[in-house]
Amino acid sequence: MSARFQAGLLLYPGLTQLDLTGPYQVFVSTPGIETHVVWKDTLPVASDTGLTISATRNFADCPQLDVICVPGGLAQAPMHEDAEVLEFLRRQAAGARFVTSVCTGSLILGAAGLLDGYRATTHWGFRDLLPAVGAIYTPGRVVRDRNRITGGGVTAGIDMAITCVAELLGENAARTVQLGIEYRPAPPFASGHPDEAPPELTAALSSFFTPLAAGMRPALEAARSAHREIAP
Amino acid sequence: MSARFQAGLLLYPGLTQLDLTGPYQVFVSTPGIETHVVWKDTLPVASDTGLTISATRNFADCPQLDVICVPGGLAQAPMHEDAEVLEFLRRQAAGARFVTSVCTGSLILGAAGLLDGYRATTHWGFRDLLPAVGAIYTPGRVVRDRNRITGGGVTAGIDMAITCVAELLGENAARTVQLGIEYRPAPPFASGHPDEAPPELTAALSSFFTPLAAGMRPALEAARSAHREIAP
Repeated sequence: MSARFQAGLLLYPGLTQLDLTGPYQVFVSTPGIETHVVWKDTLPVASDTGLTISATRNFADCPQLDVICVPGGLAQAPMHEDAEVLEFLRRQAAGARFVTSVCTGSLILGAAGLLDGYRATTHWGFRDLLPAVGAIYTPGRVVRDRNRITGGGVTAGIDMAITCVAELLGENAARTVQLGIEYRPAPPFASGHPDEAPPELTAALSSFFTPLAAGMRPALEAARSAHREIAP
Repeated sequence: MSARFQAGLLLYPGLTQLDLTGPYQVFVSTPGIETHVVWKDTLPVASDTGLTISATRNFADCPQLDVICVPGGLAQAPMHEDAEVLEFLRRQAAGARFVTSVCTGSLILGAAGLLDGYRATTHWGFRDLLPAVGAIYTPGRVVRDRNRITGGGVTAGIDMAITCVAELLGENAARTVQLGIEYRPAPPFASGHPDEAPPELTAALSSFFTPLAAGMRPALEAARSAHREIAP
């Protein structure tokens, strides 16, 4: 069977690999979806923790995607100023059915001007940055506003991608992929979000994330200004 | 801080990439654990769906691991007869605190003779193969018997790895990594296991998995016989 839908995930140096590999596994395990991992070239790319992954397509070879997904990453800052990346995302988003992100990938979508005026989510440690790109931060594991579907931090990408599969191919397709990847999670602890984690653990992690977020703010604000100048 | 513990995940051609990349993200996000991805060499290796990942260590350079983790894969059959891989696993397992697997990775542990007489789990579609390697199939998302910790299908690797973190470094370390990767899953459907999925979807997927499992059986039985001949 030829694929009915094309899904593409942006690979880039400094991404958080599970932000990409979670949704990738969901899409690639769904009959009817052809899945691409896309970057400027197909050489190995290092994630923010060192694991290297290679893209399956470069930007020029990538077909028009039905779903474009941008993963987050702790070392994503160069993407906020990378004209080739931002232009690729804008071009794909114009023809995509769904424009999606995982974790801080929403900040890259925002830098491309693709979340201006949209409700969206991101990793809890970076949520204060969404207004810097014109987005309206909205709590939620998966947040949808028109054709923008954004996921929370890292592991939320699996839930986000299953949501996309249900939208594209229906509930039975989504249920089948959950069964195939045995997605009946059983977290050992209730600690996956500041709403439920011990406050002192949230405080400790915040002291790690807050300076990273502060360092990203100027480029995101500049990207938004630049986009507003060229937007119609 | 120098790492207190060494975790290593076996990379191999034909693995299911999320079986590796889920636990990798858990281990690498935990201060106090140094995480390695290990294969015969550090060239890109293709998963069972084509995504290529590179190891960070080859077998010879890999330090003694505190946790060895073997991911599953639909195209794993050559591993059941690969003396270099099975010998690496046996050597590491002899000195490891925890010998672990995700999904059908338990079959590779079994081929190495490392689950003989142990309770263990695997992907639901392959559970009938565990007795072929001398293991006692035990239902569960994460099953522990002495120092063997085996996870169910694909996404169970995240739960399995968090369980290991709690064992190695305590509950707060495990809670912190869950918070960092925002692991408060919200599956869109209750369909991640035959216990809860619509029976017709389980039947359809079984018709895909059953021939794959049947094809693996002879080599697993041969591996067990070979191991029993050399075992003390």
